[in-house]
Amino acid sequence: MKSIPIILLGCGGVGRQLLHHIISCRSLHSKQGIIIRLVGVSDSSSLLVSDDIMLSGMRNEFLAEICHVKSAGSPLKSLLNHGHCQLYTGQGALENIVSIASSLGRSTGLAVVDCSASAETEQVSSLGCCVVLANKKPLTCAIEDFEKLVSHFRRIRFESTVGAGLPVIASVTRVISSGDPISRIVGSLSGTLGYVMSELEEGKAFSEIVRAAKSLGYTEPDPRDDLSGMDVARKGLILSRLLGWRINLSDIKIESLYPSEFGPDSMSTEDFLSKGLWQLDEKLKERVATASSKGNVLRYVCVIEDSRCNVGLQELPKDSALGRLRGSDNVVEIYSRCYKNSPLVIQGAGAGNDTTAAGVLADIIDLQDIFA
Amino acid sequence: MKSIPIILLGCGGVGRQLLHHIISCRSLHSKQGIIIRLVGVSDSSSLLVSDDIMLSGMRNEFLAEICHVKSAGSPLKSLLNHGHCQLYTGQGALENIVSIASSLGRSTGLAVVDCSASAETEQVSSLGCCVVLANKKPLTCAIEDFEKLVSHFRRIRFESTVGAGLPVIASVTRVISSGDPISRIVGSLSGTLGYVMSELEEGKAFSEIVRAAKSLGYTEPDPRDDLSGMDVARKGLILSRLLGWRINLSDIKIESLYPSEFGPDSMSTEDFLSKGLWQLDEKLKERVATASSKGNVLRYVCVIEDSRCNVGLQELPKDSALGRLRGSDNVVEIYSRCYKNSPLVIQGAGAGNDTTAAGVLADIIDLQDIFA
Repeated sequence: MKSIPIILLGCGGVGRQLLHHIISCRSLHSKQGIIIRLVGVSDSSSLLVSDDIMLSGMRNEFLAEICHVKSAGSPLKSLLNHGHCQLYTGQGALENIVSIASSLGRSTGLAVVDCSASAETEQVSSLGCCVVLANKKPLTCAIEDFEKLVSHFRRIRFESTVGAGLPVIASVTRVISSGDPISRIVGSLSGTLGYVMSELEEGKAFSEIVRAAKSLGYTEPDPRDDLSGMDVARKGLILSRLLGWRINLSDIKIESLYPSEFGPDSMSTEDFLSKGLWQLDEKLKERVATASSKGNVLRYVCVIEDSRCNVGLQELPKDSALGRLRGSDNVVEIYSRCYKNSPLVIQGAGAGNDTTAAGVLADIIDLQDIFA
Repeated sequence: MKSIPIILLGCGGVGRQLLHHIISCRSLHSKQGIIIRLVGVSDSSSLLVSDDIMLSGMRNEFLAEICHVKSAGSPLKSLLNHGHCQLYTGQGALENIVSIASSLGRSTGLAVVDCSASAETEQVSSLGCCVVLANKKPLTCAIEDFEKLVSHFRRIRFESTVGAGLPVIASVTRVISSGDPISRIVGSLSGTLGYVMSELEEGKAFSEIVRAAKSLGYTEPDPRDDLSGMDVARKGLILSRLLGWRINLSDIKIESLYPSEFGPDSMSTEDFLSKGLWQLDEKLKERVATASSKGNVLRYVCVIEDSRCNVGLQELPKDSALGRLRGSDNVVEIYSRCYKNSPLVIQGAGAGNDTTAAGVLADIIDLQDIFA
């Protein structure tokens, strides 16, 4: 039996779903000769560490209890009396993560699984442990810090940072390692913006689409967090860096779907939705019509090509994988020597806690050969 | 530096392309800290083994020479005087593969890379070495032999047996290990039949399409080798077994595109092309029309669902990934809990020596954590 000790950072939607997946996969993984041993778990205020990190991990009942307590919005520390574990808070929590990473990293091995939104992971990557990320932050920092983080490339996995569980990173990594040079990646990497663009194509007004998407829960609480393109840019940055490009977020040209005078600094979310949004309808309608007059469709994509990553609206052929996209699926087209005229296409749901956590779990299992 | 010693079985189109890729990726792999060390290479009649298998492998110049000699149709043994190596023939070749696999498998590790059409690999899989397959034969044998072959699942890779270099096996493996149960796989896994079906959709006659495809080099020398569906069935079997199903080729329902009275036992290739083929036009035209009248299109696919694998013609929705397929691309749709209404889709070129060999090379590199 191979034992993979993990520390989970972050108990939000993805982290909790991961705990559920770990529980329900116990017998499947055991048949594959693998035990995932949760030795620690943190939320934004504290870290719970199992009493015996060398031998056992937290039990299924305790993992379920963690999920229960966290979905109710309570802090991890309220669990202290339920399990055989120690609690550390504030600076002590980080120090303990570093100390566990340092001791297990060198003995049994450890995977630090980051489903948080913090930047702590950078500090543990040099301690000999593996890192699995759903969190984009550690990968979109300064290029020097990124390079430090991925310097042991086989010890890090980050599939769920782009397209959730879709095998985008794994596929790009395979193409690169086979010596097939990638010349271009084009991706629709936001379910929200994919939905917006296909509704625009149907002739609906932008303001109407965004308001409907918000009420359906497809957008962030402030839809400008989606419409700014920043999240797509971060995913584009991760893919660009995977190709070996030494670029930063500031090198990416990002086209926001709203002008800066409608930004959060100048306008509340309510004002944006009621007063700002409809003023954008006409311009987008025109751009859709212009694209259509050339037999194209308008998509919000990241284009990675010629050492540049651009994020924004693009006219694309109607009969390409991206042009045919409907609804909130993500699509990535990869062009290389082997996939020259017709790209390698990966398509599917690219968001949601279930599929994101499934991608994280597949990453953990993929690290198994490093463990004893 | 990690050293991955390999023995290459088979010097056909894929094997030679792999040698070219290994040469041209030397500096890329070296930057990743990997050296692929070719210690032996075989063709159908003999095995060349490097003089010092423990320390060095065959040099780039010698690999190029092997490609040169084999593309000219000469046997490997004509190279004996060009390199520092031993030649073994007949039973001696196999015995030496076993002996190298046995000694290196236990010391430095060894990957046996099977780009042949033989069934020898089965005999080396139990010797502690890794196995990489482009050859479908060892995976489509009796289920008991298959299970023996994949019993150390992390030591075997076979991406290029389904969809050439397309990341189909890697993606299915990820979905499985994340505990996301796969309910259905539908795939158009023959570039030739994909081309035939999309030409039928354009209204062309079956006989005309097949003759054109043959003259363009899209088909096997006897097009019935494609039209029988046997190759698709083998790929379907590999995918079904990957899902854990204990089935054999004989359990798969295969619909051939020609009746048995037109088979190779009753009719020469020439007679089939000139006299048999056109008699099939009307029936296929009708089936395309029937599908079209329901808003569907006709595709030749393997359907893996409810513990059964069926291979043959299926009516599929026009606006699905498979329905939109044009030309010779392969497409695989994977349905699971995470990819329920909208499947995970992988699409791209699924044939050709370049992309098949690229898939084999990515598999070799993916084994690196097992090597010292």
